[in-house]
Amino acid sequence: MTPALRYARRAANVAFAAGEHDPPEIVMMGSGDAYPEAFPDMGEFAMRAARDFRTETLQYAPRLGLAELREWIAAYVGREGVRVDPDAVIVVNGAKHGLDLACKLFVEPGDTIVVTRPTYQSALGIFRGYEVTYLEIGQDGDGMDVDELATRLAERARAGAAMPKLLYDVPEFHNPTGVTLSARRRERLVELAERYDFLIVEDDPYRRIRFDGEPLAPIASLDTNGRVLGLGTFAKLVAPGLRVGWVTATRDIAGRMGALKSDGGSCPLTQRLLLEYGRAGRLELHVRDMAKIYAGHRDVLAEALRRQIPDATFRVPSGGYYLWVTLPGHVDTDRLLPVALAHGVRFLPASQFFATPGPTNRLRLAYSYASPAGLTEGVRRLARAIGELRG
Amino acid sequence: MTPALRYARRAANVAFAAGEHDPPEIVMMGSGDAYPEAFPDMGEFAMRAARDFRTETLQYAPRLGLAELREWIAAYVGREGVRVDPDAVIVVNGAKHGLDLACKLFVEPGDTIVVTRPTYQSALGIFRGYEVTYLEIGQDGDGMDVDELATRLAERARAGAAMPKLLYDVPEFHNPTGVTLSARRRERLVELAERYDFLIVEDDPYRRIRFDGEPLAPIASLDTNGRVLGLGTFAKLVAPGLRVGWVTATRDIAGRMGALKSDGGSCPLTQRLLLEYGRAGRLELHVRDMAKIYAGHRDVLAEALRRQIPDATFRVPSGGYYLWVTLPGHVDTDRLLPVALAHGVRFLPASQFFATPGPTNRLRLAYSYASPAGLTEGVRRLARAIGELRG
Repeated sequence: MTPALRYARRAANVAFAAGEHDPPEIVMMGSGDAYPEAFPDMGEFAMRAARDFRTETLQYAPRLGLAELREWIAAYVGREGVRVDPDAVIVVNGAKHGLDLACKLFVEPGDTIVVTRPTYQSALGIFRGYEVTYLEIGQDGDGMDVDELATRLAERARAGAAMPKLLYDVPEFHNPTGVTLSARRRERLVELAERYDFLIVEDDPYRRIRFDGEPLAPIASLDTNGRVLGLGTFAKLVAPGLRVGWVTATRDIAGRMGALKSDGGSCPLTQRLLLEYGRAGRLELHVRDMAKIYAGHRDVLAEALRRQIPDATFRVPSGGYYLWVTLPGHVDTDRLLPVALAHGVRFLPASQFFATPGPTNRLRLAYSYASPAGLTEGVRRLARAIGELRG
Repeated sequence: MTPALRYARRAANVAFAAGEHDPPEIVMMGSGDAYPEAFPDMGEFAMRAARDFRTETLQYAPRLGLAELREWIAAYVGREGVRVDPDAVIVVNGAKHGLDLACKLFVEPGDTIVVTRPTYQSALGIFRGYEVTYLEIGQDGDGMDVDELATRLAERARAGAAMPKLLYDVPEFHNPTGVTLSARRRERLVELAERYDFLIVEDDPYRRIRFDGEPLAPIASLDTNGRVLGLGTFAKLVAPGLRVGWVTATRDIAGRMGALKSDGGSCPLTQRLLLEYGRAGRLELHVRDMAKIYAGHRDVLAEALRRQIPDATFRVPSGGYYLWVTLPGHVDTDRLLPVALAHGVRFLPASQFFATPGPTNRLRLAYSYASPAGLTEGVRRLARAIGELRG
């Protein structure tokens, strides 16, 4: 007989994962994939990692990651003012994996997590698996509205309500909105975390994909008590596929996260490859090149939107991978998506970015993956799809 | 102030993960690492994967894995009689990751899982994170005592007690005991799964590390209703570090597992590398060589034990990586471990392999990693440590 598949509650509502990517005729402005034309040749580094380091790279790795890479990461984030001991760094399979481990370590069903409204859709997917409740906070051009957060926390404290355990944010070139949290608000966030005793998960993948202006000090650099878990990744710097990211925390938290890694240590081959690539100075050059390329992509996308969909509104971000677009009137982007796919373009609809239902006439366009010509064509198709839906 | 770290219940008791491996002066007979002297040169394959396939291998991969690798895996397990569609195969970061995803998909706190007594220690570590309860079943030379299982299940059914959702076993060269589940018992397991409606997780990493005799048909090949999740891995075939394993299931289960992968898709670089290595016929040759090498290691270890610790008892396994040793009298292997480490040898004590406390005078010795000379020396040190503890 066919088994009665008694799925766990956390898994009952997950979407069935697609086995494949979109066919090439679809202009892909959905997920934040890297620009394929600009992938570097990492062949020599891969060969040396597999051949010369084979007793390290083919063997099980230490659960916390290669010691040399953890030192390299500590120095790398140290250049931005984050003082972290290599022993307090853990290598993970991309920043999402770090967020999952943070939840596994701290979050019980029903616990409250603070998120912006909107927030990163994959973070919501992970939180959902832990059956959390949300405290959603609005955003403006300076990022999360920290005054609103302070008010809501004070109300909860007065009411004796459950206080949040974690706050999650992407402070630099926020996903999906592209805004950057102001320096003053970063300081206030740390003060609030101190007062109400929660941890901050600072997800910072886009900080080096900067087109204009100067970076702000990471929240982790303002924290002296081990309240900030910093998530970083090589995915947005050079190669999403290699699945190497990191968490900066305390030694205690890193050690416990290591114990919770269900796959043992992360892959040492990709760790060694990226370490040598970084040491050779190649990472820095590549990131500089990519920031120029993505700035060009952003400009092309913004210009195409202004021409093709002149009643759409958006902020032009100073870095990162995305434009967050508001369509006029009542265009429901969940309804728009299948029409757009039929016209040959993919985007992510608003609904994916709200922990609880929110405005439906927004969408996220990634300008990272498609070529400039592709972006222009993609917006043309999107305009047609909107016209069809409206007409 | 220092944050009050409110760990989740599932994480409160996890051991702090070690940042590093043992120093080289320790003879490592603890975890089942691969023999480092025999690692192949995968340099060319790594280079080609990173260079010629870069738009695939540096980019985010499909969540279920590379389509070509899923086809390859379906054909690979097909040679053992497991009929599975490539769409029902999911690539994971090692078999442990597959077990974790199975739990994430099916297991609620309090659910019952059937395990052998003893069972694989890392499986217990994963189950613990899901706050399961156990139905522990004894083993003899033919593997899990299926009569005992049938009796216990019938009792539970009569009493209206909660029935298990999953059964976990390593039927071929069991970890840690090395025994193989008989063909008759495999059939009865499938019958019991049908009658009592549970799923079987068949963890089968050692099947090709065979020294004598003929392989038995996998449990998955006896199942026609999608009741068996088959776990496989390249870790025990060629390179633990590459962290590529698989689950064979149904399309529905594979798709849902893919959605639950917190890190998105698994690394496409290591997938491509192993695929080309397999296609070139190199994997098959390597596995054949490794089986010979490990057979030699097993013989050396067994011989050293007979000489140095003649009152120890053990079964000589026909494959796999481990000897499961019973020490005479009341030698508590949890107490023995620090003494053995001081003498320069590591093993895994009995306590790690029992879901609930069991006999303490057993230990698992891995013969995979250490050289023949190292194994002999390791047993000499172990004998001294036992002498010291007894004396």
